[in-house]
Amino acid sequence: MAKDQAFVTLATNDSYARGAMVLGKSLRNHKTTRKLVVMIGPHVSDPCKGVLHKIFDEVLLVDVLDSGDAAHLALMKRPDLGVTFTKLHCWTLTHYSKCVFMDADTMVVQNVDELFDREELSAAPDPGWPDCFNSGVFVFRPSNETYGKLLKYCTEHGSFDGGDQGILNGYFSNWATADISKHLPFIYNLSSIAIYTYLPAFKQYGGNAKVVHFLGQTKPWSYTYDPETKRISGDMQEASTHPTFLLDWWMLYSSSVVPMMTEGYGDQPFHS
Amino acid sequence: MAKDQAFVTLATNDSYARGAMVLGKSLRNHKTTRKLVVMIGPHVSDPCKGVLHKIFDEVLLVDVLDSGDAAHLALMKRPDLGVTFTKLHCWTLTHYSKCVFMDADTMVVQNVDELFDREELSAAPDPGWPDCFNSGVFVFRPSNETYGKLLKYCTEHGSFDGGDQGILNGYFSNWATADISKHLPFIYNLSSIAIYTYLPAFKQYGGNAKVVHFLGQTKPWSYTYDPETKRISGDMQEASTHPTFLLDWWMLYSSSVVPMMTEGYGDQPFHS
Ligand SMILES: O=c1ccn([C@@H]2O[C@H](COP(=O)(O)OP(=O)(O)O)[C@@H](O)[C@H]2O)c(=O)[nH]1
Ligand SMILES: O=c1ccn([C@@H]2O[C@H](COP(=O)(O)OP(=O)(O)O)[C@@H](O)[C@H]2O)c(=O)[nH]1
Ligand SMILES: [Mn+2]
Ligand SMILES: [Mn+2]
Repeated sequence: MAKDQAFVTLATNDSYARGAMVLGKSLRNHKTTRKLVVMIGPHVSDPCKGVLHKIFDEVLLVDVLDSGDAAHLALMKRPDLGVTFTKLHCWTLTHYSKCVFMDADTMVVQNVDELFDREELSAAPDPGWPDCFNSGVFVFRPSNETYGKLLKYCTEHGSFDGGDQGILNGYFSNWATADISKHLPFIYNLSSIAIYTYLPAFKQYGGNAKVVHFLGQTKPWSYTYDPETKRISGDMQEASTHPTFLLDWWMLYSSSVVPMMTEGYGDQPFHS
Repeated sequence: MAKDQAFVTLATNDSYARGAMVLGKSLRNHKTTRKLVVMIGPHVSDPCKGVLHKIFDEVLLVDVLDSGDAAHLALMKRPDLGVTFTKLHCWTLTHYSKCVFMDADTMVVQNVDELFDREELSAAPDPGWPDCFNSGVFVFRPSNETYGKLLKYCTEHGSFDGGDQGILNGYFSNWATADISKHLPFIYNLSSIAIYTYLPAFKQYGGNAKVVHFLGQTKPWSYTYDPETKRISGDMQEASTHPTFLLDWWMLYSSSVVPMMTEGYGDQPFHS
């Protein structure tokens, strides 16, 4: 059962690859019994690939322009949907029966293997427009048929927000109204944005967080961290809204990922 | 059927009373077949009461300190819960079988009588922490038993956010996970805050809005409106995030409410 199920993430460049490394490590540290898969783009460097291979069971190169006729055609019509398109690629992982996609800017803080009890398409509400689900964490069933339909939807309707979240909410459009079991609790995709918009709720429920999502412009890797003092520098005003989670990310990065990086790449580029 | 069902709102002062008037008018304009009830506090002025009587079927004075032993006792222990407590009072309207509570800072933009097909406790998700419902619009069944239990919950647990939303989410704690039919679509409680946090979603779905909620510090009556030029002045940066809805509110206020006000109170205090 567990052998044909996987957590899947995506990194098209070295910055997001660092996020994927931390995510993978956090899943391992919390003793997942499922496989770990990372889809990478052609711009991920060899040293990063090396580290990803150490953490993930499978490192899959996806180049949207080379991924077959349907993909190629779709992309030619809507070149703006490039990165979006890459995420949808997870539906082609048909050697797994069920998967959980997680953005590279997420990190698990508790074991979340119970997510595999859910069906496609399960996801948590998006803070902001809560009748949409956030596409940073979702349960799905790989299927070439679904992949084809998603591509078709993509080219015919485009994405209302220009990203994968618009596509997926358009395609799985009855998520808000059809089945409560497909609503993942918000603690499985706790966006840092929610912390400051409704702080009392975060104080009440945030202690149960299972997955933290560093949604938005500023990613953990946008800050600078001093491993000696264990402090973060950078635009601390924003950082102060999710100080512990950000520090947790950096502690994991610094203690578990950096040592693997230095073997193949040198220390320099990985502390800031 | 429709005769023992009502929309209920609350206004403890003249500012919120103006909101209640616009809400009531908006419900009438969209031809509701249900009764309209406003609960008021002792600080609402006589001229405002007069106008409320013209718009609402029932104007109910609720003074938490005079509302019986249970209420009195509860309040003595937690005086900070005063306004919150007043909202809970809607459960005592047992001459109705089912009601929809609406904040005085809401306004309907389409008929919403279909809300009475829903069961207690139906509400829309709160943007910010979407596993909580927003308590600005909710379907409930008046019941002295429930009222008593809510009071008890109130005094024993307090409110995690200091307001009624914390109490109600604590008491109806399985809302997020139990029954999808109790999740009102977000367009029944479209908070102005959602417009700028996820603008593409608002552009995609906002046209279907049924109820607008002017949630937050700045209420429509915090602005100044010039009925001649039909323009709003004040902190327009925030206003620009929900320009049409705010203008709709003021047009309704200026065309329908102000004429009623002037009869009993003089024009002066009602244009700003
Ligand atoms: O240049 C990019 C942008 C995005 N992503 C992947 O797409 C996800 C969604 O993008 P992001 O997390 O930046 O969006 P947000 O969650 O902030 O809306 C990322 O987590 C990555 O997995 C990527 O690999 N490269
Ligand atoms: O001083 C007050 C504060 C609140 N309310 C009532 O309680 C509701 C909730 O408060 P508010 O709408 O200000 O909270 P928000 O929706 O901004 O969180 C209002 O709409 C009114 O019906 C009131 O009558 N007097
Ligand atoms: Mn993300
Ligand atoms: Mn309100």
